[in-house]
Amino acid sequence: MPPRNTSTDSHRNTLHSTSAISGATSDGGLRRLSCSDNDKIARDWFAAEVKKLGCKYEVDAMGSQWATLAGENEDVAPIGIGSHLDSVQSGGKFDGPLGVFTGLEVLKVLSESKHKTFAPITCINWTNEEGARFPPGCMSSAVWAHKLPLATAHNCVDTAAPTVTIASELQRIGYLGTTPVSHKLNPLSAHFEIHIEQGSRLERARKDVGVVTGAQGMRWFDVSLRGTTRHTDTTPMDIRQDALVGAAKVVVEVERIGKASNGGMATVSLFKSSPQNFCNIPSEVDFSFSMQHPELEVLDGMTSGIEAFVRSVAEESGLEVVKWENLVDYEPSGFDQGAMKCVEEAAVEMGFSYDKLISHTGHDSCFTNMVCPTAMVFTPCRDGISHSPLEYASPENCSVGAQTILGAVLRYDDLLKKKHAGK
Amino acid sequence: MPPRNTSTDSHRNTLHSTSAISGATSDGGLRRLSCSDNDKIARDWFAAEVKKLGCKYEVDAMGSQWATLAGENEDVAPIGIGSHLDSVQSGGKFDGPLGVFTGLEVLKVLSESKHKTFAPITCINWTNEEGARFPPGCMSSAVWAHKLPLATAHNCVDTAAPTVTIASELQRIGYLGTTPVSHKLNPLSAHFEIHIEQGSRLERARKDVGVVTGAQGMRWFDVSLRGTTRHTDTTPMDIRQDALVGAAKVVVEVERIGKASNGGMATVSLFKSSPQNFCNIPSEVDFSFSMQHPELEVLDGMTSGIEAFVRSVAEESGLEVVKWENLVDYEPSGFDQGAMKCVEEAAVEMGFSYDKLISHTGHDSCFTNMVCPTAMVFTPCRDGISHSPLEYASPENCSVGAQTILGAVLRYDDLLKKKHAGK
Repeated sequence: MPPRNTSTDSHRNTLHSTSAISGATSDGGLRRLSCSDNDKIARDWFAAEVKKLGCKYEVDAMGSQWATLAGENEDVAPIGIGSHLDSVQSGGKFDGPLGVFTGLEVLKVLSESKHKTFAPITCINWTNEEGARFPPGCMSSAVWAHKLPLATAHNCVDTAAPTVTIASELQRIGYLGTTPVSHKLNPLSAHFEIHIEQGSRLERARKDVGVVTGAQGMRWFDVSLRGTTRHTDTTPMDIRQDALVGAAKVVVEVERIGKASNGGMATVSLFKSSPQNFCNIPSEVDFSFSMQHPELEVLDGMTSGIEAFVRSVAEESGLEVVKWENLVDYEPSGFDQGAMKCVEEAAVEMGFSYDKLISHTGHDSCFTNMVCPTAMVFTPCRDGISHSPLEYASPENCSVGAQTILGAVLRYDDLLKKKHAGK
Repeated sequence: MPPRNTSTDSHRNTLHSTSAISGATSDGGLRRLSCSDNDKIARDWFAAEVKKLGCKYEVDAMGSQWATLAGENEDVAPIGIGSHLDSVQSGGKFDGPLGVFTGLEVLKVLSESKHKTFAPITCINWTNEEGARFPPGCMSSAVWAHKLPLATAHNCVDTAAPTVTIASELQRIGYLGTTPVSHKLNPLSAHFEIHIEQGSRLERARKDVGVVTGAQGMRWFDVSLRGTTRHTDTTPMDIRQDALVGAAKVVVEVERIGKASNGGMATVSLFKSSPQNFCNIPSEVDFSFSMQHPELEVLDGMTSGIEAFVRSVAEESGLEVVKWENLVDYEPSGFDQGAMKCVEEAAVEMGFSYDKLISHTGHDSCFTNMVCPTAMVFTPCRDGISHSPLEYASPENCSVGAQTILGAVLRYDDLLKKKHAGK
């Protein structure tokens, strides 16, 4: 009889005590940028915990940590439970850590109950899911899925210090490992992830847990507009080439297009104007915008609408579009039916109420899903707030999610065992 | 017979050689922020030059340099010729230095021709006219005119390093002097200044020189909008409190109001958005805008129009206006009729073509004008470009301007002599 319950108290304590270990901010949030000193502390803690459980422990060449509890059959690739310990600059305690702690909790429950699974079970701390310090996000799962070359990832630079690469920082904190970052050379049989919803759908519907069906499409563009700087007080309005005015018009249009997209989002986030002098007209603006939508056609329409607007504003205002770069392009995607079914059946068995829903943002699971069966569990979070110190999920909801993950992993393990026996 | 000519060659050489001494940039511009190391080099050079001429040399408690050539009557307050050696971050060689070099050239001509004026003649390098590093601008002439308390000015901080004050930087570069910064304790009989026009009116009208009649009114506001940061990908468009979208609407409206003001200007210059993370909705934007107009009523209308718009955008978008601060408020002003007449007569006598025109921006002369007779000369500058490495005035035009200043100062000196004789 396999174990059915993860321990709520243990899980809650883990979440709170580790935010206290590194990166806790006075406003209740978390600042644990990838490969920072705070990240190293959290990683060291994770390594110590999994070693106590007798796991095989490896660090790959992107710094991701792999902790594996042996199964009956060591020839079968492990079932992974992964997420990330890093946060954005001003983040919350749940986005990321919840998934890793849940994986750790599952390993603890299996270990303490002496339940031997058929396949090995691996808990993964994926490096740099946020991409807040080293864009783009989901960096190491993208490399693992062969969607981003390792060398390209290694050379990604710190947004605040352009001479610092993620490889140099991994080296500095002692986490540039040697395990290959490859789903071929370091494979998984499946990947499961629990994450806070980062939205209000479950909370509004008063559901215990969410069975994630897939992720909406997402695109991210970097844009630079260049005009001419001149004196603010003496340059007639009709001859100006004010890059800030042009970019401001784009910000307003991006919001309009997001609102008109019927369920999608569009946001200008990064935004830098120069020169920063009170009597100079701004001549350079660099900004980034992202768009999300579940339907590819709508996403295409949003993209072409914004591009046409940028080009026409530049034309009208005498500005040059010196950069128009598509950094991220994820098509809308669906998770694996078999893995999803395990999640759903686990929720049913435990008597949890649930909704099926899509993820609005990217996760490491979106990359693992490209190369191995993947499913996700969402936990309701208060007011849908995320990437904020106000981010919160109740211990009860986290526990329900963890139990759903445990149930799903054990079901998937059964499937593997049956499949293997049938060979 | 008083001297009539400043030397074109000497003047041209001074302008070029001193931009080479400190702050010259590879693009032909000048970066000599107030109280920087570059500023110290230019100041040291100025001090050495005026000492060679046998001037009385003083540094006041705002670091302004006063170099005085004795007159026949030492009981009469000197006639000042002043401007500034500092520049903006990415400025040109003419905005400021032209005025100080012209003053220096006048001292040289008087000294070499052994022409003894009735009143002493003082060349002044006013500290921090630009305010680019330590806002606000025209700082030391404002203190001298008793419009800004010395202690307040001393405590103004570096925009790039909030713990550095202008007093600490003056101390560091050895320019925190002891001469009182006061038109009462260190008076002038009059103040003359030559400056590039920073506009295209003289160039278009093909005039040799401009007789400045006054300055348009100017206001400068600092504004901060605060919303809420949340995840870009998961926060529905209709519940966002996006400070960048709100601020962008204001940028567009400020430009519209500037264009509609019929001859005035309105510009958002400083603009900072945070957090700077690609998947966080911006929650804080700090920006500054300035407005200029020759008519007070129109300036009032522009101010109230922008304020009403900011309040209504904040209301609609769930933002808080956490700062609305009026930093600068200069009413439209006219220069002294007597001093202006001296400028005009000097231009007529030399056969220079001229136009009367107002200044679109503030100068130290706007502050001296509040407490002593003041006039300004404008020199045409290419394409009206200023605060840019492209800033350029021809040696011939600079020379014409310098000769006009010399003639005006000698005429004003005559007036003082006659007035004194008539006592």
